[in-house]
Amino acid sequence: MANIFDLIIIGGGPGGYNAAERAAHSGLKTVLFEERALGGVCLNEGCIPTKTLLYSAKILDYANHGEKYGVTVTGASLDHAKVVERKKKVVNTLVSGVAAKMRGAGVKVVNATAVIKGKGSDGFKVEGGGEEYVAGKLLICTGSDAVVPPIPGLRESYAAGFAMTNREILDITSAPKKLVVVGGGVIGLEMASYFNSIGCDVTVVEMLTKIAGPTEDEISSILQKNYAKRGVKFVLGAKVSAVNGDKNGGSIEYEIDGKTEKIECDLVLVSTGRRARTKDIGLESIGVKTERGAIVTDEKLRTSVPGVWAAGDVNGKIMLAHTAYREGEVAVNDMLGISDRMDYRSIPSVIYTNPEVGSVGETVKTAEKAGIAAEEVTLSLRYSGRYIAENEGGDGIVKIVYGKEHHEILGVHMIGSYASEIIYGAAAMVARHQRVKDVQKIVFPHPTVCEVIREAMFTVK
Amino acid sequence: MANIFDLIIIGGGPGGYNAAERAAHSGLKTVLFEERALGGVCLNEGCIPTKTLLYSAKILDYANHGEKYGVTVTGASLDHAKVVERKKKVVNTLVSGVAAKMRGAGVKVVNATAVIKGKGSDGFKVEGGGEEYVAGKLLICTGSDAVVPPIPGLRESYAAGFAMTNREILDITSAPKKLVVVGGGVIGLEMASYFNSIGCDVTVVEMLTKIAGPTEDEISSILQKNYAKRGVKFVLGAKVSAVNGDKNGGSIEYEIDGKTEKIECDLVLVSTGRRARTKDIGLESIGVKTERGAIVTDEKLRTSVPGVWAAGDVNGKIMLAHTAYREGEVAVNDMLGISDRMDYRSIPSVIYTNPEVGSVGETVKTAEKAGIAAEEVTLSLRYSGRYIAENEGGDGIVKIVYGKEHHEILGVHMIGSYASEIIYGAAAMVARHQRVKDVQKIVFPHPTVCEVIREAMFTVK
Repeated sequence: MANIFDLIIIGGGPGGYNAAERAAHSGLKTVLFEERALGGVCLNEGCIPTKTLLYSAKILDYANHGEKYGVTVTGASLDHAKVVERKKKVVNTLVSGVAAKMRGAGVKVVNATAVIKGKGSDGFKVEGGGEEYVAGKLLICTGSDAVVPPIPGLRESYAAGFAMTNREILDITSAPKKLVVVGGGVIGLEMASYFNSIGCDVTVVEMLTKIAGPTEDEISSILQKNYAKRGVKFVLGAKVSAVNGDKNGGSIEYEIDGKTEKIECDLVLVSTGRRARTKDIGLESIGVKTERGAIVTDEKLRTSVPGVWAAGDVNGKIMLAHTAYREGEVAVNDMLGISDRMDYRSIPSVIYTNPEVGSVGETVKTAEKAGIAAEEVTLSLRYSGRYIAENEGGDGIVKIVYGKEHHEILGVHMIGSYASEIIYGAAAMVARHQRVKDVQKIVFPHPTVCEVIREAMFTVK
Repeated sequence: MANIFDLIIIGGGPGGYNAAERAAHSGLKTVLFEERALGGVCLNEGCIPTKTLLYSAKILDYANHGEKYGVTVTGASLDHAKVVERKKKVVNTLVSGVAAKMRGAGVKVVNATAVIKGKGSDGFKVEGGGEEYVAGKLLICTGSDAVVPPIPGLRESYAAGFAMTNREILDITSAPKKLVVVGGGVIGLEMASYFNSIGCDVTVVEMLTKIAGPTEDEISSILQKNYAKRGVKFVLGAKVSAVNGDKNGGSIEYEIDGKTEKIECDLVLVSTGRRARTKDIGLESIGVKTERGAIVTDEKLRTSVPGVWAAGDVNGKIMLAHTAYREGEVAVNDMLGISDRMDYRSIPSVIYTNPEVGSVGETVKTAEKAGIAAEEVTLSLRYSGRYIAENEGGDGIVKIVYGKEHHEILGVHMIGSYASEIIYGAAAMVARHQRVKDVQKIVFPHPTVCEVIREAMFTVK
């Protein structure tokens, strides 16, 4: 006997569990498969654990830099094992929260690997935990895996515990003395930030000539300068050619300007990107189209197969938890016949370093590539009284990118305190096609850092 | 020989200096009078100094509560004199910044008391610094003064240095052991917060039965609970009947439930409100209408006299720096014939306590009074993974007030970390008449505290 549902969701990360809740609240009988822990990478080995660690590091940073603000602190130290212990508690609390939410919404959760087995007259067949499930609608949210690139010795070093991905490094209970981070993207930088704060010697090796991937150039450079000042070493434009080591340490080699260099270290974090997880889930049994390993979806998250949607990292569009949330919602709305669509222009992104980076929308460069005539204004956050009060020597900025003709806001990019919590308002500006003069009329509270966004609007000529 | 200008602005606080800059950039020949320091109360004895103090207190709080987050601190102490010294530096930096801005915009600044002397055929005459100035347009931004209520002994205690307003208390270099704060509004609470953090024994005496004035009831109560837990004593529904003391200390007496009680203390902070400053500026010479001591203005900041506008505390509407900024801009736009008007519904307000409070728009109570059918939803900030990661035992909430029929967002009220920097986005929602379903479509970054606002929208039935 098959288990009949309206909707089968494969994958209990942000895309899946959120969609499950929305769908169930809208009356769809929903089953959710998750083979590991509910919450996915974001909750278990991504966003939440790193933020827990980074907050402890921030407290330590505050203590160590209190003198400038009239606060003397003696003997501040961070106990990494305790921080990791607390991280587990926080993650457990949130995983239980997701489980409770699923129960509350009436979603059936199956803690097993699910495999699509084809489509019959009664719907899509999915096997999991030794049983068969059938539903007319299928939402695939299998997420992504960290890429372990084909560098000589890396696989062996990974197996031997010398190289790790975000998954493993978040569970180590004693911090390395010397850490090399391969890949200067968001994950690499956040972990570099944490280990730098707690006193490790950290080197970031990045293939590109800048850090922080697609981050706006000036902001990326300010971020790098801040971390260089704090002692993080950056090796840019370098290609890692060998990784060799075990639990007791080892080395990495990289090529730069035609020469080969070597760094000895205790641990290597590999954070060179993520790849959609489309293997072994039975996509071929129903013929879902993929491109470069990711499921092809449209702005309603429909795949090539009617009745099948895909949300989150698995479609390879923007690999961020909040994109997955929204994609899952759009997919469910589409299932319900509610008009909705993704607006990928207005998805914010954050780097939880210290200073934080918050971005949304176009840079002048990306706008130009897209054929949009754009201009920008840049204002120092030191325009803000609060910023000055709270940041001795701070060099944060905010940058507004707008259309040349109509002054519609195309992007907002900032580096500095609270950027993570400020950027959502800018995402709304971009999403709603607001113009510079519209934002001028909104009252921002004083004294805040966010009000520099408003003031920047007045520097547009 | 008179000095001829297009616009005379009296008062160099947020209303005045910002209007001066905007006006000058728009081509109006502008003179700005300020008898004390540029920046007004906000910059010199309000927002900015308190935020500087509160940030140092926050660093101390972090150090003292680091243990919960895996950070051990053996000795943390705050040097109040150093903090006050730093505050002066921060204020000086910002005052110089305002002066530089005025120079940059070509505004003439006169550091003198200005008095309106009447209107002639060539415009309004204003005397200041021994000279006469004439302009066709006049903008009054004289601000407000702290009210020292007629309590027996208070005036004498104030003169003797036992009682202070925000102006004086921000300059004391040694902290009182025991402080009584009369008035549990924003200023009183922020100062209570600071002195509590640095170890003073603080009692807040408030006439109303709740703290934080117009703050939404549940949020006001959460704030009080947080501070009670930290050792601040609250005496509510109490009328202060006597204040007696000098530099060496004294006592205050208050009536509560028909009985008279007495508290001995080292210092009394009087923060019972502010009054528009309309005396001795020559309003009567041109016949500007006032009501209960404040200049009457309309939504374009016009006064009863054509050619005269009034912005900021002096019109007694909403005594907040950012209201003054915007009012100044609306006044200047009106002078220039640019269509604009104030939207007092969407002005945010913040209390910089720890936890912070951010509010904008209606509560269910105020909506009912205004005849609007409103409902609310409330969500714990513990819905946010970041909030849980950063707040052990946190009890913050967000409350959305919306129209019963159309679900337009009427108000957002929150207490918890980052509320100060989050609330501007909610102000934009209220200003733009957005509906619950509009905000559901905006992507908020994860993991943040602000995303609880979005999630709360999904709990609206």
